[in-house]
Amino acid sequence: MNKSDRAIGVFDSGVGGLTVLRALRARLPDELFVYLGDTARLPYGTKSRESIERYALQAASLLIKQEVKCLVVACNTASAMALDVLRRELAPLPVIGVVEPGAEAGCRASRSGRIAVIATDSTVRGGAYEAAISRQCATAQVTARACPLFVALAEEGLIAGPIVEAIAHRYLDDIFAIPEAQRPDTLVLGCTHFPVLIDPLRKVVGDQVVIVDSALTAAVALEQELARTGLRRAAVPSKAAWLRLLATDGRERFARVGGIFLGATLSAEDVELVDLGV
Amino acid sequence: MNKSDRAIGVFDSGVGGLTVLRALRARLPDELFVYLGDTARLPYGTKSRESIERYALQAASLLIKQEVKCLVVACNTASAMALDVLRRELAPLPVIGVVEPGAEAGCRASRSGRIAVIATDSTVRGGAYEAAISRQCATAQVTARACPLFVALAEEGLIAGPIVEAIAHRYLDDIFAIPEAQRPDTLVLGCTHFPVLIDPLRKVVGDQVVIVDSALTAAVALEQELARTGLRRAAVPSKAAWLRLLATDGRERFARVGGIFLGATLSAEDVELVDLGV
Repeated sequence: MNKSDRAIGVFDSGVGGLTVLRALRARLPDELFVYLGDTARLPYGTKSRESIERYALQAASLLIKQEVKCLVVACNTASAMALDVLRRELAPLPVIGVVEPGAEAGCRASRSGRIAVIATDSTVRGGAYEAAISRQCATAQVTARACPLFVALAEEGLIAGPIVEAIAHRYLDDIFAIPEAQRPDTLVLGCTHFPVLIDPLRKVVGDQVVIVDSALTAAVALEQELARTGLRRAAVPSKAAWLRLLATDGRERFARVGGIFLGATLSAEDVELVDLGV
Repeated sequence: MNKSDRAIGVFDSGVGGLTVLRALRARLPDELFVYLGDTARLPYGTKSRESIERYALQAASLLIKQEVKCLVVACNTASAMALDVLRRELAPLPVIGVVEPGAEAGCRASRSGRIAVIATDSTVRGGAYEAAISRQCATAQVTARACPLFVALAEEGLIAGPIVEAIAHRYLDDIFAIPEAQRPDTLVLGCTHFPVLIDPLRKVVGDQVVIVDSALTAAVALEQELARTGLRRAAVPSKAAWLRLLATDGRERFARVGGIFLGATLSAEDVELVDLGV
């Protein structure tokens, strides 16, 4: 098999990364994908750097056994915490995270240089988005806010209505309900779960704010990386299914909750259980 | 050391079990405790029986190395899923769960036999409370409802106010906002996180409903078991601190969020990191 015909490995702590997979598939419809959700150990967003690095290396090693041609770290927390160690250990395999593309797109979108980032606890505490944005634009003013309840809401499929909006107001009003001269003009969604909440977020931050979905920007980054490394798959019909779904626990829940993020109905039979040896 | 002078081991998936620890300490002020929160793998409430059994056995084995005289499984999900295997593997060590005592108290409290149970996804799906209540009272009508957002709310310290009440109405109105002749007269809190939400829950279900906190009932069950087995610690002053806190990940977060559940301020230095070898 041609190396470029191999699948793209996508790794996430759970099912939220299916928003990234969906964006990758939309941008790169000729590619094959193997998605691994480490559902046995989710969420990563509350765990330490050491644990997240270890989990990410175990997940990557399983995907490499599936002969993937590159790795997309769909999980923001793992991108923030473990991208360096993954690149070092897996070289020369291309490894794409979601933080750098999101930061880059945030910088491009912002005119005022005031950028807000919403993410999990760990991503915010790790400061990865601030660091990545500063590398792109040294004068940017970044406000990062941890929004852990958004994760629980999205996983429950509670993605619109007054409860979601009230929680969004609670998290965001002190950032956005202020005079325009101080208000950020750009909001980066720094967690895979958040794209499904885009409608209530739009209502709360207003029409003037650009919302950057790091799933979309990661898809562009992957496309460029495949082009650069000559790994883009030729548009030939394939009998293989375009997607394999692997999970470390709970096929039923993966299918039920995953459908929200993939935007398609899944059944437990679509999901293969794998063991990361832990 | 006298066997009865040994500490009581308390095990939970994270910090929610500190509500149980608090109830145990209030009931048994002369006892010593070692609390282990498996924060590296929380939450259990969305994971499979196989994983939960394995995690519980690993946690118990670590506590047994600490020479505990008995084990309290503070986690409802682990009590529901893994109590049988723990009792079998650890015999003759006394093992107390929170489900049986909660079910028993629910049956005692209910006059109508209509009992509602709120818990995590896994606990509800496993049907453990229904089974335990049926064993006590064959004619009881049990309505179980998974309330996963309550866990996220409690962990964020968002334990009162309109957002919490709106979510409680969403979960509970079809059970409680109905004519009294069909309404349950008892609500069992089947998750360690829920006692901190008791005020908004009370507002939503009304004053007529008895709310059973399984932390309190587990404390009574433990007291009885210690008396039965002659393991009750004598009321002698001890130089040893009454509590050791062990966690598998994230001392800072354990201290910050754990304080909400223990009802006391904790610092990261109060928490020892341990490795379950995974």
